[in-house]
Amino acid sequence: MLIIGEKINSSRKNIKEMVESKNKEFIQELARKQVEGGAQMLDLNIGTIRKGETEDMRWLVKTVQEAVDVPLCIDSPNHEAIKAGLEVYNWDKGKALINSVTAEREKLELILPLVKKYQCSIVALTMNEQGIPQSSKERSKIADELIGKLTNKGIPIEDIYIDPLTLPVSTNIQNSNIALETLSKIKDSYPQVKTIIGLSNVSYGLPERRLINQSFVVLAMACGLDAVILDSTDQKIMALIKATNLLLGKDEFCGQYLRAFREGKL
Amino acid sequence: MLIIGEKINSSRKNIKEMVESKNKEFIQELARKQVEGGAQMLDLNIGTIRKGETEDMRWLVKTVQEAVDVPLCIDSPNHEAIKAGLEVYNWDKGKALINSVTAEREKLELILPLVKKYQCSIVALTMNEQGIPQSSKERSKIADELIGKLTNKGIPIEDIYIDPLTLPVSTNIQNSNIALETLSKIKDSYPQVKTIIGLSNVSYGLPERRLINQSFVVLAMACGLDAVILDSTDQKIMALIKATNLLLGKDEFCGQYLRAFREGKL
Repeated sequence: MLIIGEKINSSRKNIKEMVESKNKEFIQELARKQVEGGAQMLDLNIGTIRKGETEDMRWLVKTVQEAVDVPLCIDSPNHEAIKAGLEVYNWDKGKALINSVTAEREKLELILPLVKKYQCSIVALTMNEQGIPQSSKERSKIADELIGKLTNKGIPIEDIYIDPLTLPVSTNIQNSNIALETLSKIKDSYPQVKTIIGLSNVSYGLPERRLINQSFVVLAMACGLDAVILDSTDQKIMALIKATNLLLGKDEFCGQYLRAFREGKL
Repeated sequence: MLIIGEKINSSRKNIKEMVESKNKEFIQELARKQVEGGAQMLDLNIGTIRKGETEDMRWLVKTVQEAVDVPLCIDSPNHEAIKAGLEVYNWDKGKALINSVTAEREKLELILPLVKKYQCSIVALTMNEQGIPQSSKERSKIADELIGKLTNKGIPIEDIYIDPLTLPVSTNIQNSNIALETLSKIKDSYPQVKTIIGLSNVSYGLPERRLINQSFVVLAMACGLDAVILDSTDQKIMALIKATNLLLGKDEFCGQYLRAFREGKL
């Protein structure tokens, strides 16, 4: 499973400040820490920076890629910021992942040319003009539509990461089940398509969020999750992922698990 | 999900000593601690005590039932010890669970009359004269056979707890998958039948076993697990079970989770 570090996100107050003040040292240290923790890709999200997001994304991509060798997930609701990030991206570090497109026509029209031009991977959210449906059946239908449109445009199916969208269980106790069922359905229908979740949203509004996030990542892995955006500096959740990988029969001779133990990472 | 406390088990050296020396205070304290931790039933297993198991089981059932109000799981490979335990059982504390029967003819003939006479619940292991099959398909077939035989004898289907038998992943990386698949198949075919696992066996032979056990209980709950034998004094795993219950949509308005938080149990 692809581990994507979540921490360079401007919704966290200090990150917003560090990006706005162009604190290179802070950002590079945070990037390195996440990779040391086990991130194989880093998410860059400065969506809360309205003014200058484009310029800031350019700076951020360059700054992070100077420090670490993993590919990046360029995460923004603003296609101009995504475009800016891709323009300065160092492709020697691996394929970028654009986060995200939806089934909204306008979104698709703005993002698709970038995916094509730069041959990126793409996160596709199961929502459309009507918002986020309240059932896995309807979300799966949107996934069908998205996969159809993206592959029709020549995007390889294995470059598509469907995000089933996890809303907090604090607002509706079925929100976790809806996301997990959507995940299972997508993997059943399209084994080659990848799936992705952002881990922390499910526990929003509840105490001891780490505990809920821990359980949720295990449940999602059981449904065939391919990629997760999370705090890779949290050793506990990283260890639990390794244990789950083992229990799902994906760690031959328990090799990765035992290595992590020897390295003091469990 | 029914939580069954595992700690009164003579395979742990000090328990063997405490039972053999009839240390009432120690056993009663251990029983109370497990119930305080969240056990809704206690497992009593003194199978490693060859000489005097029958007499010891009698003493143990009386001693534990003096201390706590939960029902007991009488766990022994020896039907005489089970019989002895049931003879002194205080039925005001709830229905006893016999652990266990298999599809072995002799086992069935010895245990079934006890289940009938005392109207207990019964754990049925998916193994037969040939041993434990290496595939979920064959284990499910044994479950079919066991459920058929037990219900034919008039045992209510909801009193049957099928144990899919979890062998350590350290000996075969597919052992967890085999148990989980068996679990899912049984719940799909017989929604009224209950399922049970002993949690700790899966991690035998590996370091940081608690981590593996934590992941495994979440995976098993996702497959519809009804009962688990575990260390209920381990607050971390008990908290993770509450979080999982929440994420599986079984905790309306997050009520149990939030109460556990207020009580400092997360």
